[in-house]
Amino acid sequence: MLKDGERIDQLYAEDIQIIQSNDVFSFSIDAVLLANFPSLPKKGRIVDLCAGNGAVGLFISRKTATEIIQIELQPRLADMAQRNVQLNHLEEQMQVYEMDLKDTCQKVKPDSVDLVVCNPPYFKELPTSQKNPNPYLAIARHEIHTTLHDVIDVSSKLLKTNGRLAMVHRPDRFLEIIEEMKLLRIAPKKVQFVYPRVGKEANALLIEGIKDGKTDGFRILPPLFTYDETNEYTKELKEMLYGR
Amino acid sequence: MLKDGERIDQLYAEDIQIIQSNDVFSFSIDAVLLANFPSLPKKGRIVDLCAGNGAVGLFISRKTATEIIQIELQPRLADMAQRNVQLNHLEEQMQVYEMDLKDTCQKVKPDSVDLVVCNPPYFKELPTSQKNPNPYLAIARHEIHTTLHDVIDVSSKLLKTNGRLAMVHRPDRFLEIIEEMKLLRIAPKKVQFVYPRVGKEANALLIEGIKDGKTDGFRILPPLFTYDETNEYTKELKEMLYGR
Repeated sequence: MLKDGERIDQLYAEDIQIIQSNDVFSFSIDAVLLANFPSLPKKGRIVDLCAGNGAVGLFISRKTATEIIQIELQPRLADMAQRNVQLNHLEEQMQVYEMDLKDTCQKVKPDSVDLVVCNPPYFKELPTSQKNPNPYLAIARHEIHTTLHDVIDVSSKLLKTNGRLAMVHRPDRFLEIIEEMKLLRIAPKKVQFVYPRVGKEANALLIEGIKDGKTDGFRILPPLFTYDETNEYTKELKEMLYGR
Repeated sequence: MLKDGERIDQLYAEDIQIIQSNDVFSFSIDAVLLANFPSLPKKGRIVDLCAGNGAVGLFISRKTATEIIQIELQPRLADMAQRNVQLNHLEEQMQVYEMDLKDTCQKVKPDSVDLVVCNPPYFKELPTSQKNPNPYLAIARHEIHTTLHDVIDVSSKLLKTNGRLAMVHRPDRFLEIIEEMKLLRIAPKKVQFVYPRVGKEANALLIEGIKDGKTDGFRILPPLFTYDETNEYTKELKEMLYGR
């Protein structure tokens, strides 16, 4: 089941096994944060865009019986995601499609999705961008094949009225996220900022918007800290990673 | 110097005395947070819009020698602000104008201000709004005589290129603040969320924008907490209120 350079890791909190590779793709803390952020629909359909090796969908699969569809552009990563479904015996619940997310509506009916989750590439693709020489990682981290606009546009098309988009991203893209969401009929409803530790600026954010929702009642959720004063993961992070 | 129902309070951290009245206006923690938020210009001009009894300008006067102009609509409050200037012997540095902020450009030259600070009314004026029966407090808290749009519009007119607007407001108005700033040529640059305590949603925000600034590089500053686990003010708040 494993290919060259791959290993199987365990996420103890969710009892999930996951095939990873430092040369291709390993999930990050951000995937764990995203999987723990939205309240999950009890039925219906969840789509995981920019799925990578499938981490977010896998973690979510332990919290809901809802159908989960994963979209990943890179064949090598989509293949890992597919094997992760098999490894965790989730063939009944999860489906992996290797495709450009712009084409998602060819496989998933528009206006049919209850929740879209997405851990997209964070960095703008600029002529001056310093990119990872590893092409798998460069594509996962930089907006080479997709952009914030594309991600939110496809999400909006897929979602039902009142369906939700939950995304993890960087604070320096926050204003753009808000702008694109509004442009594309998704009302930002709540955001949670993630600070590496007390006294430091936020280095991640989790945001949820509702398709065709009202724009009032915006909430800033309690802050999340990654590390405590002793440089260990905080209690909240430990619970996400290792369980209660 | 004192009128009916008024008292003199002391802000120990700044060695400022301030005339207040529970029936008319007393400064809040938000004024203290705002006064401590922006970096202050060493020279030039600061304007304090919606000045109330002048608390924000008074606190700031201890940290910079820059001219401070206070604008307050309500005669009773502008009169308190004026007496507060005298009480603290700040006639050389501070000037109070009793006027509608929309008319500020009659007294202050447009494109001449380095920093605008504002602790505006927080609540939208709606037919359904529950307002304080005390008209002084109702006007200070509700958008009866001014709005978020007006405040940012006047700020933008007053500010020099690269001049800054610093404002304290509520998280549920955050999206509107961002939108109005962009509409009115003020690039949001950083925001600090204020959480009442660990584990609670933010109940205030401090935001700074730059006139005609670039829109990239948006930052989420370290979180501020008002109270600690023992229900006392946090160390940061105590320093602002009582000094180091």
